[in-house]
Amino acid sequence: MNKIRVVVAGPRGKMGSEALKMIERQDDLELVACLDHKFEGRKINEVADFTSLDAIIFTDIQDCLDNVQADVLIDLTTPEYGYLHTKTAIENGVRPVVGTTGFTEDQLDELTELSEEKGIGVIIAPNFALGAVLMMQFAKWAAKYFPDVEIIEKHHDNKLDAPSGTAVKTAQLIKEVREPKKQGHPEEKETIEGARGADVDGMRIHSMRLPGLVAHQEVVFGAKGENLTIKHDSFHRESFMTGVKLAVDQVMKLDLLVYGLENILE
Amino acid sequence: MNKIRVVVAGPRGKMGSEALKMIERQDDLELVACLDHKFEGRKINEVADFTSLDAIIFTDIQDCLDNVQADVLIDLTTPEYGYLHTKTAIENGVRPVVGTTGFTEDQLDELTELSEEKGIGVIIAPNFALGAVLMMQFAKWAAKYFPDVEIIEKHHDNKLDAPSGTAVKTAQLIKEVREPKKQGHPEEKETIEGARGADVDGMRIHSMRLPGLVAHQEVVFGAKGENLTIKHDSFHRESFMTGVKLAVDQVMKLDLLVYGLENILE
Amino acid sequence: MNKIRVVVAGPRGKMGSEALKMIERQDDLELVACLDHKFEGRKINEVADFTSLDAIIFTDIQDCLDNVQADVLIDLTTPEYGYLHTKTAIENGVRPVVGTTGFTEDQLDELTELSEEKGIGVIIAPNFALGAVLMMQFAKWAAKYFPDVEIIEKHHDNKLDAPSGTAVKTAQLIKEVREPKKQGHPEEKETIEGARGADVDGMRIHSMRLPGLVAHQEVVFGAKGENLTIKHDSFHRESFMTGVKLAVDQVMKLDLLVYGLENILE
Amino acid sequence: MNKIRVVVAGPRGKMGSEALKMIERQDDLELVACLDHKFEGRKINEVADFTSLDAIIFTDIQDCLDNVQADVLIDLTTPEYGYLHTKTAIENGVRPVVGTTGFTEDQLDELTELSEEKGIGVIIAPNFALGAVLMMQFAKWAAKYFPDVEIIEKHHDNKLDAPSGTAVKTAQLIKEVREPKKQGHPEEKETIEGARGADVDGMRIHSMRLPGLVAHQEVVFGAKGENLTIKHDSFHRESFMTGVKLAVDQVMKLDLLVYGLENILE
Repeated sequence: MNKIRVVVAGPRGKMGSEALKMIERQDDLELVACLDHKFEGRKINEVADFTSLDAIIFTDIQDCLDNVQADVLIDLTTPEYGYLHTKTAIENGVRPVVGTTGFTEDQLDELTELSEEKGIGVIIAPNFALGAVLMMQFAKWAAKYFPDVEIIEKHHDNKLDAPSGTAVKTAQLIKEVREPKKQGHPEEKETIEGARGADVDGMRIHSMRLPGLVAHQEVVFGAKGENLTIKHDSFHRESFMTGVKLAVDQVMKLDLLVYGLENILE
Repeated sequence: MNKIRVVVAGPRGKMGSEALKMIERQDDLELVACLDHKFEGRKINEVADFTSLDAIIFTDIQDCLDNVQADVLIDLTTPEYGYLHTKTAIENGVRPVVGTTGFTEDQLDELTELSEEKGIGVIIAPNFALGAVLMMQFAKWAAKYFPDVEIIEKHHDNKLDAPSGTAVKTAQLIKEVREPKKQGHPEEKETIEGARGADVDGMRIHSMRLPGLVAHQEVVFGAKGENLTIKHDSFHRESFMTGVKLAVDQVMKLDLLVYGLENILE
Repeated sequence: MNKIRVVVAGPRGKMGSEALKMIERQDDLELVACLDHKFEGRKINEVADFTSLDAIIFTDIQDCLDNVQADVLIDLTTPEYGYLHTKTAIENGVRPVVGTTGFTEDQLDELTELSEEKGIGVIIAPNFALGAVLMMQFAKWAAKYFPDVEIIEKHHDNKLDAPSGTAVKTAQLIKEVREPKKQGHPEEKETIEGARGADVDGMRIHSMRLPGLVAHQEVVFGAKGENLTIKHDSFHRESFMTGVKLAVDQVMKLDLLVYGLENILE
Repeated sequence: MNKIRVVVAGPRGKMGSEALKMIERQDDLELVACLDHKFEGRKINEVADFTSLDAIIFTDIQDCLDNVQADVLIDLTTPEYGYLHTKTAIENGVRPVVGTTGFTEDQLDELTELSEEKGIGVIIAPNFALGAVLMMQFAKWAAKYFPDVEIIEKHHDNKLDAPSGTAVKTAQLIKEVREPKKQGHPEEKETIEGARGADVDGMRIHSMRLPGLVAHQEVVFGAKGENLTIKHDSFHRESFMTGVKLAVDQVMKLDLLVYGLENILE
């Protein structure tokens, strides 16, 4: 088996370090270089204690791609660097897998055009949490048949905002397909304000905040005589690597840019 | 084994009919008569199709107790009849088990005094749902050690009020023992109103309403690195009979009035 | 709106009576006749107390279809009658929705051919539990990405067999797509036999049996740092009617035979 | 408020390091020294990077207690050192809180006698997981009223044994109070071996093993029309510190030896 040769940009960050651990576990991936803003020419295991991989660090992407044979660039940096890295990778025939929420519409258009011109696969995903993406897809599917739905999301008590971004996004996806509906008894009333949660298009979202919790969500559909529940528990950011690995495998088969992990699911 | 001889008042009501089914299943209980507002002298299985028991129906309690040897009166009628029946039963040396929320303080004081005078056990309970009572007792106990707690209660979408009475009562019991605390991040904010639920003394209650649900509640305690959850699912009112049976057994051992199922738990 | 005109075969059975209640609730359905093995010429509400619908009862399907204008036949009888009814309905241009597990391959082939010849939609489903069907489809989808999975199914303690048919079917669907895998620690051992449940192709199925439970199943996928759970709770057989209604709507758009509810999901 | 002055033995171990973090968070505790097998005379924050506390390290307990004023010794070492430390602490009027499973009966008898002689409180606990201890106590209480119960325990897939020690201990506690009962249908049968789990006195235990899971247990009680569930999720060993802190507070009020965290719950 030919291994997929990978460059990781941002190898010492929270996500980047998880990416290195994932590559170490996978027989079919090989780390051929890292991109960092410092430590030019050092080996990654000399400057980071979480890995035994000894790929060389580059600080310039063009220099890096000139010197190593790479198939895929996993970019887990900032939107600014991410844009530059993605563009350069495509121009050098290397397939980018990019985790960012920050690209502008113009940048996405330009990268889409460039990838098609070069026939190079690109995957850009604001969210690599495959389990959460599947939960949302299942919820969207179920909502076609079960219009009564509530969402409970549960997070640690250091979280500032309620509801969570994932809960709001789930509700929006459901809204695209379900027939509009004001749920609950038409004359229901709250004897204590807020009991029925946040109202999004007639659906209800409830936000629990407790120490010990990490990041959890349940989407509960109710119909006569039955309930269907889709639940996701995220315990650790290493979970994102299941999605990154999937994207690396899929980007090798693509010849254009795909935005969003949900669009590479079969 | 001597069977406990039981009179059921209100045998054709929702709760009364469950009581008859329960007595039919129990080897150690015997139905010796029913009290109803009509059908004097008929057999209960002639006027109700849910039972094969053939106890005689009386419409007057004194007449009933004069004519049958009874140990326990299970009263599942109204507060008015319940009071009259309870008083008469005590005076006749029959131990009442009464399911009602409607007695006045004065009535309770009078019945308490009377039961002590006669040395006759009496159990009056606003709620015979033993599982729910245990949930509340466990929650009260856990709250001594885990002050961070939220309640999710889930009911069918025909329910008018939110939060449920059980959820509010649970919060009150917790409030008696936990150190007062405003939960969540001190600067947390709702981007959609109501997301964080109803605030009761710093605790949060969330009310879900969906078709298919019956009556469910979860009390979730959070602490560093762990969660402790107490959950009760009530699917059918027959569940109340576990508490009624317990009360019948316990009332035989009592020589005074006890109010509330939680006070006969060992 | 033109109502869909429905004939129900087996109107007094467990499923048939739920079908009548469902039709009564739906504005877009109209019961035009019933097929029964007795009560020829009577009205259904004269012989059944669960409905106010007054459609006429026929005992012969050809006679029935000669006398009423019908769009759809909902057949909830036996395999023998179901086959006869389905065939006759197709020949008369009426679209059958049939709930049965008992047709032979030959019968299905014949009915498939006949429906194509006539250009008449037919839906035959061994299971109309839409929520359970969705759970299985979601599980099959998730298993492509998460090969580690266990199933817990929970039923009332009167159930004889373990695991349940739905759990076994779910495991088979998962087996079709996941990479084969022996789960758990390679050297794991049971200190008490049976702790790790039933082994199906390396997956584990656990069967809980308790009073109070109805029919519940959880499919739990585990991956690094996350869990994805799909749960179905079936409280009452009326839940099947969500699937029957969906089939009635879809059969109006079909011009061939479809077997299995999962094959009419969009 | 006078702070409780604490010595921690084993400060660099898994549990000891959590103990130091806990002391750092608590306003009412003060670390006055550490006991270690090396680093005599160094400060703990010089040799461990997880704490800013600067207590001096001693390698000999008598030397330590001669030189600092201490109220409580938290011992998280081995049974051998634990025994020596506990004995010496009692003799010096310092109250030990000891986390160990390894003391012999003879050692416990000796320490019990010594503590009574000196009138010094001692708490020895094989398990400081307060949430798990409460779960077991609740389960034992509920089993008096609900004899039908099953246990599901869920752990990461690196765990070797099934069922877990906590599940077996829970079953034993339940066994002490419930009326013996063979659960499930009398004629139930497993179509796939192991489906019904491990049999402990007629109860069933199911062991799930999946990546992503940490340590979780549900005790499910079933009765007519209802379910009562007690669930504990343990995400991180820091959770043990809730129990250690409780023990430190309680040991200050005791004048004898208590074995087991469950025996200091009020």
